[in-house]
This record gives sequence, C-alpha cells and structure tokens, in this order.
Amino acid sequence: MQQIPMPYLLFLGDVMDPLAAKTARGIHVWRPESCVGQIRLATDSVSLGLPEMDIATAKAQGAKTMVLGTANSGGKLPKHWIDSIKTAIRAGMNVANGLHQGLNDIPELVELAAEHHVELFDVRHMRPELDTGTGIPRSGKRILTVGTDCSVGKMYTSLALESAMRELDLNADFRATGQTGILVAGAGIAIDAVIADFISGAVELLAPANDDNHWDIIEGQGSLYHPSFAGVSMGLIHGAQAHLLVMCHELG
Amino acid sequence: MQQIPMPYLLFLGDVMDPLAAKTARGIHVWRPESCVGQIRLATDSVSLGLPEMDIATAKAQGAKTMVLGTANSGGKLPKHWIDSIKTAIRAGMNVANGLHQGLNDIPELVELAAEHHVELFDVRHMRPELDTGTGIPRSGKRILTVGTDCSVGKMYTSLALESAMRELDLNADFRATGQTGILVAGAGIAIDAVIADFISGAVELLAPANDDNHWDIIEGQGSLYHPSFAGVSMGLIHGAQAHLLVMCHELG
Repeated sequence: MQQIPMPYLLFLGDVMDPLAAKTARGIHVWRPESCVGQIRLATDSVSLGLPEMDIATAKAQGAKTMVLGTANSGGKLPKHWIDSIKTAIRAGMNVANGLHQGLNDIPELVELAAEHHVELFDVRHMRPELDTGTGIPRSGKRILTVGTDCSVGKMYTSLALESAMRELDLNADFRATGQTGILVAGAGIAIDAVIADFISGAVELLAPANDDNHWDIIEGQGSLYHPSFAGVSMGLIHGAQAHLLVMCHELG
Repeated sequence: MQQIPMPYLLFLGDVMDPLAAKTARGIHVWRPESCVGQIRLATDSVSLGLPEMDIATAKAQGAKTMVLGTANSGGKLPKHWIDSIKTAIRAGMNVANGLHQGLNDIPELVELAAEHHVELFDVRHMRPELDTGTGIPRSGKRILTVGTDCSVGKMYTSLALESAMRELDLNADFRATGQTGILVAGAGIAIDAVIADFISGAVELLAPANDDNHWDIIEGQGSLYHPSFAGVSMGLIHGAQAHLLVMCHELG
C-alpha cells in the first residue's frame, strides 16, 4: 500500500471557518510528532498554534509532504492555492490532498511533480488494485468501529483505541478508511470511493492476515441506519471479520 | 435515463458453452418480440433457435441495435468480433455490450460510430450522474427481490413478477440493476459498478417517485449473507424503500 512520507507541513490556506480545518486538526491531535509546522495565506485564517513557517523553512526542518489540511465548500481546489502547491513541488516536497478535486487531474502539477521527482497524493483515489472480498478466515485480531450515524466519532474512537492499546504495549495499528484518517496514518483506502463490488475486498486488503497477537483497528464509516451509506457500513462489517465491534453514538 | 433502441439482433459469436449465452437467452426469454434474429460466427456455436441472419438482413427487418449476447471467460472482447461490430456500425446499427471491456474504450469504434451516427452502449457503465441517497419517502409502490445468495434467480423472479402483474392489468415496470437485466429492459444501472457512496442514490434514481398505483419491480443483487456483495444488497434495500421484499432461494 502507498505510504505518504512524513513529517508534514500543514497548509491551512485562507480558511476562516474552524470546522473547515478538521483534517489538519485531526492530524495535529493524533500525530503531533509528524507536524513540522503550519502555513497560512492570511493572518486571520484558522490556526492550529503550530510554528508558522514558509515552504523553504519547512523543507529545511525536514518536512517531506505538504498536506492541504482544510476543506472549502464544494471540495474544489481554489485557484490561488495552486501557487503554494507549485512552490512546495519546486522545493522538493510531496503534496497530499483530501479534496474531491484531484491534484493528479491538473496536468501542469503532474508535469511539475515529475520534473522534481515528488509525488502528488489524492487520498480519495489512493488505492491498490482491488478485488471482490473472499470472506476467507484470516489470522490476527481486528476491531471495527461502527456507529448509530455518520460523524459520531468513529475515527477519533479508533485512534484513541490505538493510542491506549499501544500504551498497554499491545501491538495495535489504526487502519484508515476516510480522507482524514488516511492523512493521519499516511496510508489507507477511502472506502466510500471504491466501486460497490469491491467494498469488502478493499477492507480485506487494508487489514490483511497478521500475527495472532496483532490488533488492527479499522475506522468505520456511515451507519447501518443511514439511508445513503448503509451499503458501505455493511461491506466494512463483512470485510473486517472483526473480533470486536465498538459502537459510537452521539451523546445527548 | 439512456434507452437502448429495440428491436435487437443478438450476436452470439463463436461461443460453444451454453452457459456463456445466458445474456442472449435472458433477452430472448423475456423480450422475444424485441429479437429480430441471431448472428453466429460458426455453425456449431450456441443457438437460441432464432432466425439466422446477416447484418444487412437484420437491418432491413428493422433491427436497431446489435447486442453482444455472449460472454467469454475474462470478459474481454475477442479481436475477431470487432469486424462484425464494425459491419453493424456501418449498416447504421447501434451496438450494446455487457462485457467488462467497453466498446467506448476502443477509439476506432468510437470514431466509426460517430461517423455513422449510431451509439455504443456499454451497459456496465451506462448511468446518469449519481448522487448520495436521501431516504426521503416517495410515491408509487416498489418490490425488491432479495436472495440467500448470488445467482439464485433474482432477475428471473423480477421479470416473472412484471409479466404476471401486467397480465393482471397492473401498472408494473421491471427496473434493471445488472448487465443482462439492462439489456432485457433497454435501460437501468449496473449497481455493482457504481461508487460505494452512491449505491442507494442510484436506486432512488432508477425507481423514482411514481403514480400511487404504479409498481416498480427492482432487480436485487447479491445477498446480505454474501462476503463480497452484502454492501450492494444493503444499499439496494435502503434505496428501494420497498413495500414488498421477495426472497429468492435455491431449492435443494
């Protein structure tokens, strides 16, 4: 599976809405050691409180990938962000992107990246060749987070479990199935973007056979109750072959 | 939704295995009035017992679309079939194809079709712009066929229901979700080929709001018990908002 090189420089653009920075915030909360600094296009943009730095400085401090960590409505890439992306590429940094619009769909960026030997990661489309699920039993232990709705904390719960289990010296790995999760982990499969036939097969690939004492903690998506996304949740349940399901529910 | 013009000329190629002709057979069983004739590339190929005719004759008898009605292993388009496809295009016939490999991926066929003002239908990829499902209640009545496994007769059951309900003067329409079903109906969405996020949304589009006394009979896919395809089945259940589920099970 493709791996996004860390550490990151978090690009926050000129977004004012704190909710729009949830990807950058997720990375910062769960992988602070992988965040060299932040870069903003306006002094009143949202901030994570990370060291403010330009691309050259971040590169000098070891940043390997600039991550577009904010979402604007519509998931499109604002034209004036392109200049920053080009500067990062020219500085020899990879660029990772969770927006719907792909960096790899912009020919001038693809050319520039090839010229500078760096990679463009569109996490919604970052996946190996997929196949249908087999349902064949496999070794290793797996936890899947499920929920009574979308956006009830399945990613945070999964990452909190990983963190707590590692503190107990358990051999545990978070397996990402959504954009933010993939940027946190540096790898994964955006499960809602795969072809319907391959949902469970993608999960089998994401959390393959492992040592008997190894735990994969698989990030759930959607909910069996959700009119849009129940199919994705169902495919996750089959593909995960989980030993434990952790149910997430919004309090109140 | 795109509509494949009927009647059809059924192209059987040089396939010897009767099982490989199940698409052509399905069309012939359920829409005999839409089959002008058959064309084969060898005298010992499988036959449906339809009048044997060349492309010019079929065209003269009113055939509007040549349907590739047999599958070879691997779902690839044999090179020597291309000549027949070109002849059909030059004769002014559309060509419809249920194989994985798309006619629209072969530039010389795309060019030739444009030149002769005919269309190439790749039924696995024939679909309108999709969106996520809404779950909003809608008018009209819907039946969904479900099953304890794949390949237990969900398409045949759906078409048998349509036929029997029409005999009772009920206002009933079969809604196709698989390759053969789409060729039988001349329209539909190959639900296993849509992006996971859009499964239920595709079903809402396929069987939209309708008259209160109108029945849509939606062709089910997979099974909630199936390790590969349960996600597709679940999305169908949510998207269909069915008044009746008809369970299909293999006897014995």
